[in-house]
Amino acid sequence: MNSSDIECAQRLAEAARDAIRPLYRGAWSHERKDDHSFVTEADRAAEAAMRAIIEREFPADGIIGEEYGNRNPGAGRQWVLDPIDGTTSFIAGRPIFGTLIALMEDGWPVLGVIDQPILGERWIGAAGQATMFNGTPVHGSPCRELGDAVLATTSPHLFSGEQVEPFMKLAGAVAHRKIIWGGDCYNYGLVASGHVDVVCEAGLKLHDFAALVPVVEGAGCIMCDWNGDPLNADSTGEVLAIGDPARLEDVLEAMHA
Amino acid sequence: MNSSDIECAQRLAEAARDAIRPLYRGAWSHERKDDHSFVTEADRAAEAAMRAIIEREFPADGIIGEEYGNRNPGAGRQWVLDPIDGTTSFIAGRPIFGTLIALMEDGWPVLGVIDQPILGERWIGAAGQATMFNGTPVHGSPCRELGDAVLATTSPHLFSGEQVEPFMKLAGAVAHRKIIWGGDCYNYGLVASGHVDVVCEAGLKLHDFAALVPVVEGAGCIMCDWNGDPLNADSTGEVLAIGDPARLEDVLEAMHA
Repeated sequence: MNSSDIECAQRLAEAARDAIRPLYRGAWSHERKDDHSFVTEADRAAEAAMRAIIEREFPADGIIGEEYGNRNPGAGRQWVLDPIDGTTSFIAGRPIFGTLIALMEDGWPVLGVIDQPILGERWIGAAGQATMFNGTPVHGSPCRELGDAVLATTSPHLFSGEQVEPFMKLAGAVAHRKIIWGGDCYNYGLVASGHVDVVCEAGLKLHDFAALVPVVEGAGCIMCDWNGDPLNADSTGEVLAIGDPARLEDVLEAMHA
Repeated sequence: MNSSDIECAQRLAEAARDAIRPLYRGAWSHERKDDHSFVTEADRAAEAAMRAIIEREFPADGIIGEEYGNRNPGAGRQWVLDPIDGTTSFIAGRPIFGTLIALMEDGWPVLGVIDQPILGERWIGAAGQATMFNGTPVHGSPCRELGDAVLATTSPHLFSGEQVEPFMKLAGAVAHRKIIWGGDCYNYGLVASGHVDVVCEAGLKLHDFAALVPVVEGAGCIMCDWNGDPLNADSTGEVLAIGDPARLEDVLEAMHA
């Protein structure tokens, strides 16, 4: 991963913006709520635009995309694309969904982008570098104790079976009025920028979390699974982002006590 | 209620914006997570700015405000102010909180504003008039059946005791992927604009819901309590917004079956 990969990721995000913006809050929202064809349209247009750039600039690289499947699955470098993370927010006209772009090397995410096409907000994280938010370096916020933390999670429906209790224990360690619901990838950007302290989620796919790792870690925060282990292509999708690394043990203790 | 009231409400919203914007994502977010003094600061500054305008232009009117209490409690006209609805989103740096301004006459909300200071989005509803979004009339969206609906609610913690079951039944009538969480007052604006079909909440105070009523109803949608009755100063805070009036019975049936 080098600076030309970062430049490419910027162009991928721009291409996705161009594909998504015209469809946001479009006329379809008054007509076709009963099917998801309009979402598929935005998803596919954004992914196709990104794939065309990667195939032209890095023809030997692999691509893992939600809509158009895998290309060069054996390659050491894999681009992981999620054109619209937070589909329901997109449908509902809330500008807190995002386009996710990751580059993985040998199964480890080394470059990540969270892009909000409507607000024009972009976080870029690259291994060994400070995470940038619209061109300015950002970092997580100190959090003196877990009881002070702002906790975010997208939906109570993320948790099933044995996942419910650890999440509920964590939520119980935080004031109710300091939990925000909804938000998908956008919450992880807010961790990197120091506004949210903890995100706890489950059921995430590789294309949901790969891009988040370099963004969160490049801001001096922790991104890990529910055991505190780093995330890679084999992770189960139980994910934590922690703004202040000093709170990692507290979070794990609260969940598994 | 007449056009000078509407013009005044616009100026109130502008004044609140001026007070809130400088504090959004401010330096405090890295420093003072452990107390809410920064929120109080934004809340108070916005409410003080709005009260000064009302006291100057309509000295005989009443004011019901979260931070500075009641003025002229016996007046037939009451301005109801909630400077920041969605405090946790404000703290977390998510631009989906809002300033709520309502004018009530004899206990009934006749004028309402939902203003999002960061995005520069404003819904204005006035009895007998079409709801305006940034100067353009908006209307709710048709929804052929409840199973197609996009359902929004701010938090599972809103519901307690006997409120849990009706909400869960309603949520069960909608696809999980079509439920959005978080959002506070912003979700009601999205109903008026036709992007969200149903909002179901409980535990709302008068200052949380008074402004929503004219906005939602002026868009041809329904705003009512969990029995389908209209909302006024005596309502309990169990609130429904329904984009397509044809779905009212289905919503009530789903909740109370």
